[in-house]
Amino acid sequence: MNDELVNKVMAEVAKTLGVNTASSSTVAATHVTPNTGCNLTEYVGTAIGHTIGLVIANVDRQMREKFGLDEKYRSIGIVGDRTGAGPQIFAADEAVKATNTEILKIETPRDTEGGAGHGCLIVFGAEDVSDARRAVEVTLAETETHFGDVYGNSAGHLEFQYTARASYACNKAWGAPVGKAFGLTVGGPAAIGVLLGDTAVKAATVDVIDVSSPANGTSFSNEVITTFTGDSGAVKQAIIAAREVGMQVLRSMEPSEELKSTTTPYII
Amino acid sequence: MNDELVNKVMAEVAKTLGVNTASSSTVAATHVTPNTGCNLTEYVGTAIGHTIGLVIANVDRQMREKFGLDEKYRSIGIVGDRTGAGPQIFAADEAVKATNTEILKIETPRDTEGGAGHGCLIVFGAEDVSDARRAVEVTLAETETHFGDVYGNSAGHLEFQYTARASYACNKAWGAPVGKAFGLTVGGPAAIGVLLGDTAVKAATVDVIDVSSPANGTSFSNEVITTFTGDSGAVKQAIIAAREVGMQVLRSMEPSEELKSTTTPYII
Amino acid sequence: MNDELVNKVMAEVAKTLGVNTASSSTVAATHVTPNTGCNLTEYVGTAIGHTIGLVIANVDRQMREKFGLDEKYRSIGIVGDRTGAGPQIFAADEAVKATNTEILKIETPRDTEGGAGHGCLIVFGAEDVSDARRAVEVTLAETETHFGDVYGNSAGHLEFQYTARASYACNKAWGAPVGKAFGLTVGGPAAIGVLLGDTAVKAATVDVIDVSSPANGTSFSNEVITTFTGDSGAVKQAIIAAREVGMQVLRSMEPSEELKSTTTPYII
Repeated sequence: MNDELVNKVMAEVAKTLGVNTASSSTVAATHVTPNTGCNLTEYVGTAIGHTIGLVIANVDRQMREKFGLDEKYRSIGIVGDRTGAGPQIFAADEAVKATNTEILKIETPRDTEGGAGHGCLIVFGAEDVSDARRAVEVTLAETETHFGDVYGNSAGHLEFQYTARASYACNKAWGAPVGKAFGLTVGGPAAIGVLLGDTAVKAATVDVIDVSSPANGTSFSNEVITTFTGDSGAVKQAIIAAREVGMQVLRSMEPSEELKSTTTPYII
Repeated sequence: MNDELVNKVMAEVAKTLGVNTASSSTVAATHVTPNTGCNLTEYVGTAIGHTIGLVIANVDRQMREKFGLDEKYRSIGIVGDRTGAGPQIFAADEAVKATNTEILKIETPRDTEGGAGHGCLIVFGAEDVSDARRAVEVTLAETETHFGDVYGNSAGHLEFQYTARASYACNKAWGAPVGKAFGLTVGGPAAIGVLLGDTAVKAATVDVIDVSSPANGTSFSNEVITTFTGDSGAVKQAIIAAREVGMQVLRSMEPSEELKSTTTPYII
Repeated sequence: MNDELVNKVMAEVAKTLGVNTASSSTVAATHVTPNTGCNLTEYVGTAIGHTIGLVIANVDRQMREKFGLDEKYRSIGIVGDRTGAGPQIFAADEAVKATNTEILKIETPRDTEGGAGHGCLIVFGAEDVSDARRAVEVTLAETETHFGDVYGNSAGHLEFQYTARASYACNKAWGAPVGKAFGLTVGGPAAIGVLLGDTAVKAATVDVIDVSSPANGTSFSNEVITTFTGDSGAVKQAIIAAREVGMQVLRSMEPSEELKSTTTPYII
């Protein structure tokens, strides 16, 4: 009984860090949740991180104009979440490769439900609603994977992402060169992110694309984000080196807490 | 005993969503709380959403200048809160209609105590301190009403506001045409807000004034806000249609939680 | 047992306000925590507010360039935190006086783990790594002191800082005149901060340097920050007067909670 309450409190703490457990993870357990409890045609599903996927078959003209969407696509897919930008954007990158869609918008609110990072809003454009829907479905399905190298405790979080071949979502969000290996390191509080970037770039021959910090390239988030390109083996090696250092430092801030993957690490 | 603890935890969770319960709602229960526990002449009262009302009879010259207040008003009324921008601004709109004051400032911090939205800072200017005080009192009293169409769960929140005749607060905050019907839809995470706007504008003949998103017109909040004007019946119809859709979608993100009004719905 | 759980919940609530208790304060109890659990040469220690100190002996050239650090310093000291900007920046101000370092960067994310304020990222530059390390150590040690006039409850927080002689950290962060008395008042929600500034400037003959608000000079934080210079006795008197008023107002927002110093008040 006592344990149950502690669990509730810890779930709240975990949620604050952008590490969804309990209710969300049961929702997201089988990747995309089909239409449970929502019969709207616009509803696609949900995923970990309080992520939701929606589709609009024929966007209203006034909305299109005021929201700044390209006239050329009548259908849009929408993925949004409270916790996570990296996982959902890397997932959307897979979706763009797999479908006949274009990324119209990626915006990253200051969120994570009390944590140090971002949430996300992604809009896909498509000429056909079935393409928009498919892009959203793929994104929701891939989000779980890309939470694999997100690690959090009550002091902060670490995030690592890697792709052997970046596509248009990574390009739109971080200027990743399309078709090349791309990765990133994120540390919050931001101090840790500086060390992650420095460690990564010293561990292998990679090119730094950019370094974002609270006042520069983030939404005043408490993170430093470093993005890399280069040979695919080198990018992976850089990220793995940074991850090893980051785990030690973030663990030192809350030694009594376990620091582990939100789902299952995928950068191996 | 166990229940009491669960209540405490749930109250914290609810607070995180920008849905004040427990301590705040008892404070705010009878609208404006008179001088309980604070005998400062500057203190006016508190309201739901961790909202406070203050008055300064004769603002210092240096403060006026550095804070950027109009020289012409010696007295100011101040309303600020942690949770909510819409409710307090619509309440201030009523206050401006009812008093001899002017809106000097409306600013919307990224807050809601861990939730996806904004807090608020409103400054009224008046030549006479009694006018400034009256404006603050009316705002505090009306805030409860305007929380009526704010709905939240641990995944996000929805907000709907409507007035048959906008005044200077809605004009300052969102460019509402003074004297005309005005309303807005808000959804967080932002993905839901896109669907709300699209649904509203398709449901009735209304004019979209603007669509704000995390990177565009909000304070990096995790919301899409759509504002409307038009015939008063049409504005109301548009909002009610969006509300129906929004409730279904937000409920789908946390099916085990009840999704209900923070106070009592007023758009009927 | 029940009490223990209430403590856990309250610790979470306190943390949300930017008032660290429990786990963090035990970590920070003896000022700088030496290398417990982290054997990296880059690790210096931690302090209250989820503050971490790191050092990089020889920053990578690409990192230096993309992160925008002065070429002239090969070593950097890094202090970052989730909760607090004022305490850590005033502590860094002492560190700059005590060491052969320069402040390269101060950035203030929108954080405090669900609270109304900022976190912080401070970067010191040094030609010698031992200087960088020493600056970080002094900052971590002084942070506890400068949390002495930070007061929080679940409605918001107050912060007061004072130095008889400002140095380069206060200059970089707030334009404080180097070598002169300098102080600041912070109130969140922002409404309270307006009253604090007005009270301070009326209480003694001081010069207002600036007033920052959610949309102007903060990271969309829910605070108004007023900065002062002048005769050292006057600056202190102004701050003490504001503190007295602020405590009454913030207490009125949550009368059932105790409002006390995060550590031990130092402005006396």
